[in-house]
Amino acid sequence: MIPYADALKLLLAQSRALEDEWCRSSDASSRFLAEPVHALRALPPFTNAAMDGYAFASEGNVLTAGSEYQVGGLIAAGAPPPANAEAKVWEITTGAALPAGLDCIVPLERVERLEAGRIRLREALIGGQNVRQRGSDVAIGTQVGAAGQRVDPALRMMLAALGVDRIKVRRKPRVALLSTGAELIANPSLPLGEGQIYAANAPYLEASLRAMGAEVIANTTLGDDAQTFAAQMREVAARVDVVVSTGAVSMGRHDFIPASLRAADARLLFHKVAIRPGKPLLAASLREGPLFIGLPGNPIAAAVGFRFFVVPVLRAMLGMPLETPLRVPLSESVRVAAGLRRFLKARLRYSPSSGIGLELLEGQESYRIGSLLQANAWAVLHEDTNELPAGTLVDALPRDAGGGWFID
Amino acid sequence: MIPYADALKLLLAQSRALEDEWCRSSDASSRFLAEPVHALRALPPFTNAAMDGYAFASEGNVLTAGSEYQVGGLIAAGAPPPANAEAKVWEITTGAALPAGLDCIVPLERVERLEAGRIRLREALIGGQNVRQRGSDVAIGTQVGAAGQRVDPALRMMLAALGVDRIKVRRKPRVALLSTGAELIANPSLPLGEGQIYAANAPYLEASLRAMGAEVIANTTLGDDAQTFAAQMREVAARVDVVVSTGAVSMGRHDFIPASLRAADARLLFHKVAIRPGKPLLAASLREGPLFIGLPGNPIAAAVGFRFFVVPVLRAMLGMPLETPLRVPLSESVRVAAGLRRFLKARLRYSPSSGIGLELLEGQESYRIGSLLQANAWAVLHEDTNELPAGTLVDALPRDAGGGWFID
Repeated sequence: MIPYADALKLLLAQSRALEDEWCRSSDASSRFLAEPVHALRALPPFTNAAMDGYAFASEGNVLTAGSEYQVGGLIAAGAPPPANAEAKVWEITTGAALPAGLDCIVPLERVERLEAGRIRLREALIGGQNVRQRGSDVAIGTQVGAAGQRVDPALRMMLAALGVDRIKVRRKPRVALLSTGAELIANPSLPLGEGQIYAANAPYLEASLRAMGAEVIANTTLGDDAQTFAAQMREVAARVDVVVSTGAVSMGRHDFIPASLRAADARLLFHKVAIRPGKPLLAASLREGPLFIGLPGNPIAAAVGFRFFVVPVLRAMLGMPLETPLRVPLSESVRVAAGLRRFLKARLRYSPSSGIGLELLEGQESYRIGSLLQANAWAVLHEDTNELPAGTLVDALPRDAGGGWFID
Repeated sequence: MIPYADALKLLLAQSRALEDEWCRSSDASSRFLAEPVHALRALPPFTNAAMDGYAFASEGNVLTAGSEYQVGGLIAAGAPPPANAEAKVWEITTGAALPAGLDCIVPLERVERLEAGRIRLREALIGGQNVRQRGSDVAIGTQVGAAGQRVDPALRMMLAALGVDRIKVRRKPRVALLSTGAELIANPSLPLGEGQIYAANAPYLEASLRAMGAEVIANTTLGDDAQTFAAQMREVAARVDVVVSTGAVSMGRHDFIPASLRAADARLLFHKVAIRPGKPLLAASLREGPLFIGLPGNPIAAAVGFRFFVVPVLRAMLGMPLETPLRVPLSESVRVAAGLRRFLKARLRYSPSSGIGLELLEGQESYRIGSLLQANAWAVLHEDTNELPAGTLVDALPRDAGGGWFID
């Protein structure tokens, strides 16, 4: 049995960042930047009015209350500036370019309109006000996105503002899902026969993979037949980056995957990891190139294997950094036998009076889905832990990969 | 000027939950339940073995170490149970149904295999171990999903395990985006002319709407022409639930939207809200049915208007509950003039030693996109606030609707 950290290291050593590809910024939502993005333009691209009003050239002087001025005309955002070389004062709309020499905007309500295009200041005026200087938000050359960063709405806004038409993103990881088990019924409109259950891991894994930005190339439910499995593997292996299977990795009579991998000349990376749940987990490097990650069949063992093996692999392929867990205090004491890394369904809570606390949920058995729905976190207890009094700091990660923290 | 809470109340009074529609569970990721989901089956559906081993009938007795038994055969998960009425002890695989009368599983490694199908217990055995009772995870009738709940991967797993083929979800809200402003260039492959900028609000809003599960029916960039705007409105009004516009709601010369709405017989709900940024925001009820929300054109004012007006409307249409902000302590003191509700770009941080803290970011001006990229939160300062010493509890919401908290 290999420790979790060593197993993960073996997997990550096989998980290179995928090729990059060009993508229109308008299609880039939820993709991952393949390289840093630097501003090739300044923001704002020109010095402009922060509000509707009158543009003045204060030339460093204070313009006194009551002083009167002739307005040269209107400078409207997006319209060509009017020709009037004489004028020193202009009406201007928000966002319109400030002509050279003008340096402040007086808001409409601080000006009294007189006759014949003249205005009078209601208040004294100090230069530089209500003007947005070119490049004051983003200077040319500023890094606005990092390699591995997800394109979220705010980054979309920034890329659009900078006029970035296309960006380099990582190709989407391609994953095949193979669910083993003669007891599995994949079609929910079929009735269950004796001893049968509905396949629940595949829908979970498919939804989780898609939420992470992966493509699910195949999603097949097999029985317990090694030959069917081998045929499916041949069918998908050359087309994907990762094959994820569930079930058939333990030591029971129908746990044919280790032998099938040997027969297919796969290079075994590890089999059995010192974790709970999910100990029988297996990983291999397939002859055709992709990684193979064999998750156990119990739903929570499969979810843990996905979250703590498949997700780090996909993050590496997407060029994302490793996740940093939060170090949060346990709400209650817990005692576990040392020697295994434990992944426990947990709930991160926050209140102003007691701060952040991590509650370990009832029902940790690996067949219990009900408690997974209650969880918003995984508590990660390290191998050397044993007696953990309330308040002990432990690692916590969000339950779902990529979804952030949903805290009550 | 109407206070924020009153403006929101007026909008929500017009925001009914959308119709429900049937959806296959397999297509339901990121949709929202229209009604509670109750388990029509038990989980597990039958009492079964928690691991590979031997099934016994302890009948309440302790089976002593060293005792020997004749094994009746193999009960494999998903295979029909073998006929052997005599047998009291069975080999069994994980997940296989436990025949009536058997009540515990001895793991493989605690049993010594003898000849002729006989086994010997290495340890004493207590009844009830390693058995998953029918219904012990989810009893029939248990509510597993609430109306308004988002279908996330864990709920997908639960629905699949229960064999739920179809569920009732809310129809996706349909939204049209109209960006006004003669200065806007929507196509990033075109060069900028004098005084022009690239349209950045529409990509932000489109990405945010899609992330919330809305359909963007139209995304049009208009100039400053009221007739074009009116034509676009006629084009989309009958096909959408919400029209969201940006720009042209202030009091400047090109702010034609209030007059256009009057001309179209729209019922104005409010115009100008006591907030910063985003004060000129406007809402109306269109004759054809949909809501109209006119956001200001400055990017952060548009983002605030989206997050604090459009998002609550969409949540109501999806049947989601109102968001509850976290009450978190300010990291530093701040002073603001009272009277406006303020939405400030902020960063929620956590460390085990100092707990949760909310930092108000530099660069709050509504044209600054750079600081939006640094933010993971909005700090919401209420109208009665003025001097806020460090440690004051304020409301915080995640920057992006629906994305959870991304905390460092």
